[in-house]
Amino acid sequence: METAETNPPKRKREPTQRLKGSPLNEADWIDAATGILVDENVRGIRIDALCKKLGVTKGSFYWHFSGRPALLAILLQNWRKRMTTNVIDRLGAQTVDPTARLRALLALPRRSRSPKFARIEQSIRDWGRRDTQARDAVQEVDVIRLNYLEELFEQQGFAPAVAKRRAYIAYAMLMGDSVLRDTLDPNGADAMLDDIMDLLTQKETAL
Amino acid sequence: METAETNPPKRKREPTQRLKGSPLNEADWIDAATGILVDENVRGIRIDALCKKLGVTKGSFYWHFSGRPALLAILLQNWRKRMTTNVIDRLGAQTVDPTARLRALLALPRRSRSPKFARIEQSIRDWGRRDTQARDAVQEVDVIRLNYLEELFEQQGFAPAVAKRRAYIAYAMLMGDSVLRDTLDPNGADAMLDDIMDLLTQKETAL
Repeated sequence: METAETNPPKRKREPTQRLKGSPLNEADWIDAATGILVDENVRGIRIDALCKKLGVTKGSFYWHFSGRPALLAILLQNWRKRMTTNVIDRLGAQTVDPTARLRALLALPRRSRSPKFARIEQSIRDWGRRDTQARDAVQEVDVIRLNYLEELFEQQGFAPAVAKRRAYIAYAMLMGDSVLRDTLDPNGADAMLDDIMDLLTQKETAL
Repeated sequence: METAETNPPKRKREPTQRLKGSPLNEADWIDAATGILVDENVRGIRIDALCKKLGVTKGSFYWHFSGRPALLAILLQNWRKRMTTNVIDRLGAQTVDPTARLRALLALPRRSRSPKFARIEQSIRDWGRRDTQARDAVQEVDVIRLNYLEELFEQQGFAPAVAKRRAYIAYAMLMGDSVLRDTLDPNGADAMLDDIMDLLTQKETAL
């Protein structure tokens, strides 16, 4: 992976056919770039490395993107959308009960495809510690998620100031759970979730 | 930072004097390596880059370490010690009250030097997602911290199974708080800490 980046071709060309399978679309490029982000880091996302990985020529890349910055911007935009709006929409379709929605959110790190999403998110957060564009995307995601959690607590009848604090605590728990699942796999995950819900949603009842 | 690594010198030599200041000790090398880990990643930790950063020749490096693997192993060992045993020892000297100890732990991400420690930890966790040696160090740290938290809940009178779950929840909160401080800086951090303590330590009293 030590080859130098060569210059882009002068004119836009038809995308080259992949060595096998159907022609590439934008999502294929984003997926491949995301894979490199997770396995290496953002510096590993280079046009030549992507073309090699996908078995196509550079003309194909420039059919979809004006250059590496455009690819990175679209990668961040897609992640932002997938990790906020899409989750919230899906939850909205499942149930209207704010407590059930909160529980479904807290259960997210325990779903089968979650380790993959967690790795992508941790890689983007790592990138965000060194780059403003990535940091802005992370911050936007964090604010959207926090506001949504806040609404869920308000809908449960908590006063705005309390809802704000509980939302932050719930989000911190969710985030920490997602990070720690790499190394600590707690037994009794369901009992844990019951406990978390009891802690977060109680008002006057004893535990 | 694109220069190739050259071979180590054949014989061990006296450490070269730094361009300015006192001779380097092992901690200086570890600090410099940790700085590169945070700013770039583990691949950026190369002997030539370190020597350039510290203004010394390679002989100095080989006076302290047999090679790059030894440096990385000592870096992880030091981090492990600093982030577990040292914290626990310092807490032990401060107070014997398990509730006060828990509060002091939960307040850690809000201390002035914490962003620096959080960045180091996040960089080591990132490294651990790609490397067994780093992952083992992270796991060891997680298990030590979790066991300590578990003891604190047991000392507060919680049954072992409950103490186990509360310890995981407390640790997830602490971890999430540390991650989210990069992007979300909650107002009323003290009120937040009161809330967290109320949630985590309550037994029969209402909130």
